[in-house]
Amino acid sequence: MEKKKYAPIGVFDSGVGGLTVVKEIMHQIPNEKVVYFGDTARVPYGSKSKETVTKYAEQIVRFLEQQGVKAIVVACNTASSYALDILEKETDIPIIGVVKPGAKCAVEVTRNQKIGVIGTDATIGSKMYPKYIETLSPKAEVIGKACPLFCPLVEEGMWEDPVTDEIARRYLVELIDSGIDTLILGCTHYPLLRKTVQKIIGEQVTLINPAYETARELKELLTKENLLNDQERGLNTNIHQFYVSDGAEKFKTIANMILKYGILSTKVVQIENY
Amino acid sequence: MEKKKYAPIGVFDSGVGGLTVVKEIMHQIPNEKVVYFGDTARVPYGSKSKETVTKYAEQIVRFLEQQGVKAIVVACNTASSYALDILEKETDIPIIGVVKPGAKCAVEVTRNQKIGVIGTDATIGSKMYPKYIETLSPKAEVIGKACPLFCPLVEEGMWEDPVTDEIARRYLVELIDSGIDTLILGCTHYPLLRKTVQKIIGEQVTLINPAYETARELKELLTKENLLNDQERGLNTNIHQFYVSDGAEKFKTIANMILKYGILSTKVVQIENY
Repeated sequence: MEKKKYAPIGVFDSGVGGLTVVKEIMHQIPNEKVVYFGDTARVPYGSKSKETVTKYAEQIVRFLEQQGVKAIVVACNTASSYALDILEKETDIPIIGVVKPGAKCAVEVTRNQKIGVIGTDATIGSKMYPKYIETLSPKAEVIGKACPLFCPLVEEGMWEDPVTDEIARRYLVELIDSGIDTLILGCTHYPLLRKTVQKIIGEQVTLINPAYETARELKELLTKENLLNDQERGLNTNIHQFYVSDGAEKFKTIANMILKYGILSTKVVQIENY
Repeated sequence: MEKKKYAPIGVFDSGVGGLTVVKEIMHQIPNEKVVYFGDTARVPYGSKSKETVTKYAEQIVRFLEQQGVKAIVVACNTASSYALDILEKETDIPIIGVVKPGAKCAVEVTRNQKIGVIGTDATIGSKMYPKYIETLSPKAEVIGKACPLFCPLVEEGMWEDPVTDEIARRYLVELIDSGIDTLILGCTHYPLLRKTVQKIIGEQVTLINPAYETARELKELLTKENLLNDQERGLNTNIHQFYVSDGAEKFKTIANMILKYGILSTKVVQIENY
């Protein structure tokens, strides 16, 4: 058990988006090692079916198990919405997603009980945020809006741009009209559009970043299970490992932009063999 | 041999884009049956590596072989750029891509020998259009420009929209400045943006739609090999078959928008098993 403390944490996403969660983990529990897997050969998940996303997530969990991780974070809203329940049953390793921590925080923050959620077609279509929020606070009203162009805009680096402003205005107009006071950024890419979204939706709306909440919940979980790494890392900061299913070089470039961390190498895994 | 005439033609793409080629086939050689495969579980190809795209294309060719097709059309510029040479060696079935027919037509049309090509990151990065155009016309100058947001905009149905105009202006400004008189729509999604692209680039530039040229080359190939179906179809128009790797219902909706054809059913195939 003592040794297990020093095992890494497995984190996965369909691509680079989950790195916003890794960034929070690095910040909030800096002693922890991360093994990250980005499914860049099959990205995006947000337009795919429940069956397909679940199959992909199961393969990745098997890969992470083989890396000896002590906990798994599903750092993808689509995979958390579609597959978390199934994954929990299939693995003995503690596993958390991003939907529940984000929903929990929104319920704590809202004053008028009107909560907005933005995400991929899959995440919004799954209605996982409304379902979970309803169990926490039956009075809360949840208004969801799919924003399918946000991910490609993030991946094009157009984090602040007049075009992104215009697209955001179209997507967010319904949410503005509905009078929400809290908005969940329900896709791990979206924290990178935080400034644009805040500008369009207005300062009166509190943005919830599930990446931050997930890292906090992970810390609590590790503390409770006595799995928190108490060994300081010293000067060797390159302890994290990054795996992808395709395009290692391209991933490294975007990953270093998001993490502001010097990733030395990224390895390609044949994930469909898992 | 006589029976082989009545076999279907296999056509594939990463998703719905290749249907612009199917539309041309239906129009130019209406007696032919089409078996279409759209790799919707792994779409898009344009941001993925040569190795990954080649592996995916090989699996699809094996699937189409099992459907008893008499010819195969790689109705995807990325797969044609990365994998056609390899696929040609691996199958006995006549196989054509979209790059060569598009390049050939551009060389015939240009007067000032300045040809533009727009496509995905992969297609432009592969330099397959410039390479092939150079062998046909060493004097021609080819200016390529990747337009990664065009595909998501098409899939969002934003075929004519002020946002699409603005994105097109940014992508096409270099091509306008370079004085091209011919522009290849080097992605099977792009014919759906034809009006926008023509408006921004100006009427003096001739747009080349490789889908049209590919159907023409297919007809020539079938005629030469004595494989053209001479049996009229009569009133039964629902003879084509559509397969995808994910999201059959969603595919059907967009496919009927593009083809203006009543697709009755779309079947899901576990393509990684091929």
